Amino acid sequence: MLTFFHCPSTRSSSIHYLLEELGVPYESEHIDIRAEGGAPESYRAIQPHKKVPAVRHNGVVVTERAAITLYLADAFPEAGLAPALDDPRRGPYLTSVVYIDSVVDPCLVAHMNQWPYDGKGAAYGKFEDMVTNLERTLSAHDYAVGDRFTAADTQWGVMMYWALDVMGLFKDKPVFRAYLNRLAERPAFQRFAKAMAA
Amino acid sequence: MLTFFHCPSTRSSSIHYLLEELGVPYESEHIDIRAEGGAPESYRAIQPHKKVPAVRHNGVVVTERAAITLYLADAFPEAGLAPALDDPRRGPYLTSVVYIDSVVDPCLVAHMNQWPYDGKGAAYGKFEDMVTNLERTLSAHDYAVGDRFTAADTQWGVMMYWALDVMGLFKDKPVFRAYLNRLAERPAFQRFAKAMAA
Repeated sequence: MLTFFHCPSTRSSSIHYLLEELGVPYESEHIDIRAEGGAPESYRAIQPHKKVPAVRHNGVVVTERAAITLYLADAFPEAGLAPALDDPRRGPYLTSVVYIDSVVDPCLVAHMNQWPYDGKGAAYGKFEDMVTNLERTLSAHDYAVGDRFTAADTQWGVMMYWALDVMGLFKDKPVFRAYLNRLAERPAFQRFAKAMAA
Repeated sequence: MLTFFHCPSTRSSSIHYLLEELGVPYESEHIDIRAEGGAPESYRAIQPHKKVPAVRHNGVVVTERAAITLYLADAFPEAGLAPALDDPRRGPYLTSVVYIDSVVDPCLVAHMNQWPYDGKGAAYGKFEDMVTNLERTLSAHDYAVGDRFTAADTQWGVMMYWALDVMGLFKDKPVFRAYLNRLAERPAFQRFAKAMAA
């Protein structure tokens, strides 16, 4: 019913963590994006850029991390990871999930490549504004959307772990460390971390 | 109840068009992002990068185009622009909306700046794969998600108009032109185009 197209230690990791939080059964299909020439050409029928992640649920393919996150959190409401459509947190929740893909990720790519831009021409704006926004948000409350864990935190958490501890792209600020420590207490995060290390 | 933070001829145009399709009353607040130093610093409380668009609905602020699109289309279901949560088109709809912000826009920025990258390190991948995917999708059916107009088409449509007719970033392929012509027949698109030209 639910297939997860995954490659360890890539951008599909955050969906891996989401699936652990959802606690639903799924099959994992390994896509070797690091093979010469990338994933097999046949995979393009699933993901048009031959990227991971992708999921197939009830025969329908969903791609793009933010879309997968929103889709799965709504599809399995019993996990309580998505504010309902009429919840005032719904808008900020959508913003938080989209922000990782549309702002944080391309900002990090531009930063790592040292591409010169002033933030005006790019929708994702400046690296510094992005870091300040993450810091301001996590200083105001414990999670990406207020004081309750949502599916947005699966995307924020894995991004933060990767940017802070793997790549060293952020300064190790107390508010970032406290956020990661908060997530590390969660059984689903521990299962995810264990699977990553395996 | 609904405030739209907008600056004409910017990335907030696609939300302007969405609002015309929704047909709901709203107030527009002009944000002069082209002023020296950008929008006033006070606007950062609404949008952390001082960008447009943003909306405030029932006192809650929503930012990021994909999030605003998904939020408003669900908040006003009578317009029929969003497949319901249990509709099999829901996943592809989410993918289509997110794709514009997370793939098409950063691909266009990298392309316009001629930044050298091979598509592996960036989540948004290659410009050529993106154009091929748009062409393949619009060759398979009339709209971004199957043969029915959805809120995704407000984002695809304005992006296509901008990339094809304003900036000349795409080759003028018959399938792209047919799509724009299809949208141009819609009264809401005509109202939007008239307001843009004013």
